[in-house]
Amino acid sequence: MARGKFLTFEGPEGSGKSTQSGSIVTFLKAQGLEVLHTREPGGTSVGEAIRNLLQHDVAGDSMDPLAELLLFQASRAQLVNTVIEPALSSGTWVVCDRFIDSTVAYQGYARGFDLSVIHDLNARAIGGCLPDLTVLVDVTVEEGFSRIGKRYESDEGRKDRFEREARSFHEKVREGYLALAAESPGRVALIDGARSIEDVYADIESRVHELIG
Amino acid sequence: MARGKFLTFEGPEGSGKSTQSGSIVTFLKAQGLEVLHTREPGGTSVGEAIRNLLQHDVAGDSMDPLAELLLFQASRAQLVNTVIEPALSSGTWVVCDRFIDSTVAYQGYARGFDLSVIHDLNARAIGGCLPDLTVLVDVTVEEGFSRIGKRYESDEGRKDRFEREARSFHEKVREGYLALAAESPGRVALIDGARSIEDVYADIESRVHELIG
Repeated sequence: MARGKFLTFEGPEGSGKSTQSGSIVTFLKAQGLEVLHTREPGGTSVGEAIRNLLQHDVAGDSMDPLAELLLFQASRAQLVNTVIEPALSSGTWVVCDRFIDSTVAYQGYARGFDLSVIHDLNARAIGGCLPDLTVLVDVTVEEGFSRIGKRYESDEGRKDRFEREARSFHEKVREGYLALAAESPGRVALIDGARSIEDVYADIESRVHELIG
Repeated sequence: MARGKFLTFEGPEGSGKSTQSGSIVTFLKAQGLEVLHTREPGGTSVGEAIRNLLQHDVAGDSMDPLAELLLFQASRAQLVNTVIEPALSSGTWVVCDRFIDSTVAYQGYARGFDLSVIHDLNARAIGGCLPDLTVLVDVTVEEGFSRIGKRYESDEGRKDRFEREARSFHEKVREGYLALAAESPGRVALIDGARSIEDVYADIESRVHELIG
């Protein structure tokens, strides 16, 4: 049986990547493929518990940046080894919202960790399980914030620890993503997310279609 | 102000290390020292949440060994950077139940992770904050199990994920500890724990006394 393909969706807050990944999962299933849709951090019981630790303040503690980085990698190792790799091996396609590139953009470019440390820990956590295609949905920080603002208009308190970071943090996240797209044009498809959901989707579907072959 | 000293207590399950570290904390305080007593995994709110993930099964998931290793390191980074290092810098002594040597013994020797990976991650997590003295309370697996057996006689269900490992696992843990003691005789004090609590304590107090100077 042919190994499944591994697709990841990346982008700044408010880029619309989760909407788009959901539509691509529907598209792939309509082609008769087995598809698993998962996310990072999370995707396993252990990982979802880690996600909760990462996104919400733990009473009385402020999260150390290195602890944060290691928690992301723990969630990743659990997801790759117990879910993603077994699925791909059995021929299932896997679509994952956020993966290694988020760590480069958020903990590397935005938090300022040495990129060689990030790449080393990423490689250790995934053990060779690289995405076949990474869809990077790019929007400016202004556009992303405006969408998030609408989402949380009725309940400001629900923004998570990352969404509450300063605008300069999110500018660096975007800068990191654009650098990754420039470094790995073969794997990373840079998609202009500042258009209608339908137009963005059409671009992504055409890139994904090439993978079905 | 003089930097505080950093003491860690290590040993297999049932070695009596927590009883002994508690007595040493009492002793150090009686010498007029500021002392902080903490533990791994845990010692911070983030770390205690990680401890809970590590010691108890998360419904529907079996813990991946690499995820386990990274969770220990995340708890360690949080503890070192937010608690231990600030305390030592301000002149406080720190006594910690379990630290880097537990990872070498449990994840390295017993789980079988490459020791160079363990040492590399340990070094990254502690960033140079090595113990001044590590008290290794050694007991045979038989003796340790017999003590644990008594502790849990009335409630078998409360044994944690590590205590439930096979006897061969715990034999390798002890082997790892003894190897560490042989490699680092200057830092690691090997104490025979198969004696009365008072005799074991007398040995440890004499080693700790040398540190007060």
